[in-house]
Amino acid sequence: MMNSTPLILVTNDDGVGAKGINELIACLKELGKIVVIAPDGPRSGMSSAITSAIPIKYKLIDKTEAVEIYSCTGTPVDCVKLAINEVLDRKPDLLVSGINHGTNMAICVNYSGTMGAAIEGCIFDVPSIGVSLSDHRSDADFSESCKIARSVAKKVLETGLPHGIFLNLNIPKVYPVKGLKVCKQADGRWTNEYMKSQNPSGEDVFWLTGAFVDFNTEDKETDNHALLAGYASLVPCKIDVTDYAFLNKLKDWEITTD
Amino acid sequence: MMNSTPLILVTNDDGVGAKGINELIACLKELGKIVVIAPDGPRSGMSSAITSAIPIKYKLIDKTEAVEIYSCTGTPVDCVKLAINEVLDRKPDLLVSGINHGTNMAICVNYSGTMGAAIEGCIFDVPSIGVSLSDHRSDADFSESCKIARSVAKKVLETGLPHGIFLNLNIPKVYPVKGLKVCKQADGRWTNEYMKSQNPSGEDVFWLTGAFVDFNTEDKETDNHALLAGYASLVPCKIDVTDYAFLNKLKDWEITTD
Repeated sequence: MMNSTPLILVTNDDGVGAKGINELIACLKELGKIVVIAPDGPRSGMSSAITSAIPIKYKLIDKTEAVEIYSCTGTPVDCVKLAINEVLDRKPDLLVSGINHGTNMAICVNYSGTMGAAIEGCIFDVPSIGVSLSDHRSDADFSESCKIARSVAKKVLETGLPHGIFLNLNIPKVYPVKGLKVCKQADGRWTNEYMKSQNPSGEDVFWLTGAFVDFNTEDKETDNHALLAGYASLVPCKIDVTDYAFLNKLKDWEITTD
Repeated sequence: MMNSTPLILVTNDDGVGAKGINELIACLKELGKIVVIAPDGPRSGMSSAITSAIPIKYKLIDKTEAVEIYSCTGTPVDCVKLAINEVLDRKPDLLVSGINHGTNMAICVNYSGTMGAAIEGCIFDVPSIGVSLSDHRSDADFSESCKIARSVAKKVLETGLPHGIFLNLNIPKVYPVKGLKVCKQADGRWTNEYMKSQNPSGEDVFWLTGAFVDFNTEDKETDNHALLAGYASLVPCKIDVTDYAFLNKLKDWEITTD
């Protein structure tokens, strides 16, 4: 496979015009042929949402020998599905989703459209990486993120990933980044999640906000801990969410159907 | 806790008017006080999507001593977040999401708004169950599903669930259901996912469709196998998607940052 030029699928959830994806395209070019199929606008927080009630479309934005860029009306997962089912000639050798404007550590893997796309690549058995920078600004500095993302992408192209496993790479907003740590997902959640306001009709409306609380701040093995210490975090994640340890206990439950 | 009346939060992704959620409300009434906060219309395939670019609203639809029903403009996960952050006086003792019109076995846990809501309940440490019937029809027969859902809900109210674990309950479209099997999530994915069509402007548009392929049809421990054999399937799932076995191998990778 590696004798020919690797085919790299790139997508994101901030939209095809975001700085993060365009910096990512530039830094991955040296590793292979790039095909980008990304949402035509912001799709943050779309998780693994799919569009089924209406049809989706895509269109060519730009094409050179090295890079083809398409925009799509769907979600990040729709982009990956459409790419692999309809747009690409063959299954890509790698999927990189990002670089996201904003962290996707800990439970963010559950809400993030960037990570939804990486999960979808993995479902298709494409080695897949989601990459995020802890900086929401539209003009964030992606220089450190690009270096680290390219290094991880290069290694994954060489090594592959096991069936059902994808990677969640997060980069802290520090210069220089201290290094890369392989981590587990931190256990925690957001609190105080709504800012109450009113619309012009006087109705209460609720804006999503909130602060992340790490349940185990002393645990040095988590992605949140690594990021706070100035390291990039790399979490190997899996598609199969079955809890095998609890499965055996659950078999002993006596559930009586009336 | 069980000396007082249990507080049960009910939601879904088919919308507050769907038959599935209304049958679920009716059958759970005998177990406690029911508060429903569900989307104001269909939100199938919304996964764990959250609404952050615009604010959300909710309104009271119906209120009796036993059941309060609210509709919400957001996603299933928004409904759960809003319920626990803003609407309820206290954390519920149980969350039941469904009953979904259509199966959510195998990798559906990743795409389903019904399961997104169950995941969200679990993130809040509320014992949470997603319930789905293998029948998409709006007038599907939920009689068997209700019996089984109530039995599982009753047991979960008595026993609780460990931190970070939620349940995915699927019921086959057979009468009577043969029984309940504790299962793992089947490994597989959808194929041939798009029906290509054209819009009135002559542009190609793509409708999501497809057929599920089970990678291990011989594996008798999966939810897909149980459902095909006429049993309801109960899969214990977890929030933490870290692959701990691969994590140790990944630590041995030499990743050189340029």
